[in-house]
Amino acid sequence: MPDRPHHSASLTQIVVWDQEGFQGRRHEFTAECPSVLEIGFETVRSIKVQSGAWVGFEHAGFQGQQFVLERGEYPSWEAWSGNVAYHVERLTSFRPVACANHRDSRMTIFEQENFLGRKGELSDDYPSLQAMGWDNNEVGSFRVHCGAWVCSQFPGYRGYQYVLECDHHSGDYKHFREWGSHAQTFQIQSIRRIQQ
Amino acid sequence: MPDRPHHSASLTQIVVWDQEGFQGRRHEFTAECPSVLEIGFETVRSIKVQSGAWVGFEHAGFQGQQFVLERGEYPSWEAWSGNVAYHVERLTSFRPVACANHRDSRMTIFEQENFLGRKGELSDDYPSLQAMGWDNNEVGSFRVHCGAWVCSQFPGYRGYQYVLECDHHSGDYKHFREWGSHAQTFQIQSIRRIQQ
Repeated sequence: MPDRPHHSASLTQIVVWDQEGFQGRRHEFTAECPSVLEIGFETVRSIKVQSGAWVGFEHAGFQGQQFVLERGEYPSWEAWSGNVAYHVERLTSFRPVACANHRDSRMTIFEQENFLGRKGELSDDYPSLQAMGWDNNEVGSFRVHCGAWVCSQFPGYRGYQYVLECDHHSGDYKHFREWGSHAQTFQIQSIRRIQQ
Repeated sequence: MPDRPHHSASLTQIVVWDQEGFQGRRHEFTAECPSVLEIGFETVRSIKVQSGAWVGFEHAGFQGQQFVLERGEYPSWEAWSGNVAYHVERLTSFRPVACANHRDSRMTIFEQENFLGRKGELSDDYPSLQAMGWDNNEVGSFRVHCGAWVCSQFPGYRGYQYVLECDHHSGDYKHFREWGSHAQTFQIQSIRRIQQ
């Protein structure tokens, strides 16, 4: 495998279909889409990410559940969703995510909200925070110094996903209310960098 | 965060419950369980992994769908399952997985079955094989040189999971039939090391 490519102003390109299995109406985007309703789709049902990394949202205007979309093929909702308990099969808006060079990505996690309590410095992927010495199944707040990260409710990057970026929110996420409009708990057990 | 711990003959410990939310009957294991029916459980419905890494299976005898279980808390089936399309909520057997030191883990992937075609050398985590230069949404065969890995159908470690280990099968997996009894396709779009 080649070395991980260095971050550059690379193209972002995503193709979406309104039916599963890359069937039905098709549309390409190279920039954000605040609502697929504007192109006549009820919802997105299959996706191919051709370059860059993206995040999809349940609702228009980048609200609701979040779904990380890295390069590859997603033939149905099951392929990008991580939380089977919340079975509303809808993806209505999406936008690119600005990733850093993998080696440069940095984040600090805090035990409590408002950047208080014990902290941990992350510069790698953690399928299990507890396996790495974080004696807790929660994170109170985050400071993203560089790059884009996805934090998940359960180990192995499963459950609700929250995309945290250094160029959003000034990189500061002080309470779960700021992680996404679908967040209802401090429960975070895995964290990794988003790959573009 | 402390440096990743070096691999040693560490304890493996898992606690399982027969109800969600860590309710109902409870049982601890430090070694494999070929069938929870033998302890009077119909199925496992919540799990806490206290040390080591484990793999759970849909059926007794380590057959069927596979679920990677790293340290942390899984309050319900949704927390460990990755493929929402296959909604049979059952986990009936489980065993420890022997992980290597993260830095020592190595695997070769091949475009075709029987270790033929183009190949790639992996020693890291790949949430998107295509983002790393693998121009394909499939892998034909694997050779695991060191460590334990989980390969997934879709990017971001979603969809069906296949646990591949260097100390099983001599590390050689020449066709999807050998990845697990639930495998029906060569589709693999993300691969990572299992963390203990």
